[in-house]
Amino acid sequence: MDVQLINPFINATLKVLETMAFVKAKAGKPFLKKDNTARGDVSGIIGFTGETSGTVSISFDESCILKIVSSMFGEEITEINSEITDAVGEITNMISGQARQKLEEAGRIFHGAIPTVITGKNHILISTTTGPKFAIPFDTDAGSFTIEVCLEG
Amino acid sequence: MDVQLINPFINATLKVLETMAFVKAKAGKPFLKKDNTARGDVSGIIGFTGETSGTVSISFDESCILKIVSSMFGEEITEINSEITDAVGEITNMISGQARQKLEEAGRIFHGAIPTVITGKNHILISTTTGPKFAIPFDTDAGSFTIEVCLEG
Repeated sequence: MDVQLINPFINATLKVLETMAFVKAKAGKPFLKKDNTARGDVSGIIGFTGETSGTVSISFDESCILKIVSSMFGEEITEINSEITDAVGEITNMISGQARQKLEEAGRIFHGAIPTVITGKNHILISTTTGPKFAIPFDTDAGSFTIEVCLEG
Repeated sequence: MDVQLINPFINATLKVLETMAFVKAKAGKPFLKKDNTARGDVSGIIGFTGETSGTVSISFDESCILKIVSSMFGEEITEINSEITDAVGEITNMISGQARQKLEEAGRIFHGAIPTVITGKNHILISTTTGPKFAIPFDTDAGSFTIEVCLEG
């Protein structure tokens, strides 16, 4: 596992959630996925190109993202609305941007595409790449969520 | 509307469906979207970077993609399975690749990320970009589907 590539995404996720949403997250152990699916009720995804091409995605269940964005805005949000999807787009963009900045400081250049947010109860994201797919589980007081980094084959 | 940017995606979609799946599609008039959502049961999406960053996505309802992939393989497929999602990943990748090749011939360089396929009944893709979002409807004997090209703000 290319830890030098994965760690910046983990650190960016922790930092973005803490600074944007005042949510302390704890990262579990990254693992190489054998299947190719991520599940969620709200996901953010962004592609990148450069040294290698890939995607980073973040998938939340409804309860977890409602709590996170409620914490971000300091008011209770009870349904998936445009505040939630805008926030997930921004979280995705910031994780990608901060991770790429750290990678650039280490001499590894990546360029980010633009984020897309997916909603739909229990949707599935499938990366059809033949390359490695890393999943990193996170725990927070709001619940758990997962980020995935998929690379070209 | 940057027709020189959009047309290669339209032409690639027509060509990929005809050569891969023996499906003749007819493109409707591209339009600039005011809202920011695409709906489908199965979608493919791929990011790109370069002269500008963005995404291209293709969203099908279940009935349409079942017919298209059944035509591709010459056997009836009756449910969303890995043959369908692999095919949508490949269709997405080929549309992106062929469009970027034509753009490169015109001196406009773009790099593709890797495709992601989304399944989930009536899921929604939301591009949170402040840039332009183009939708192009297509009609086929298998039903209609839409591609979207979203650009950074």
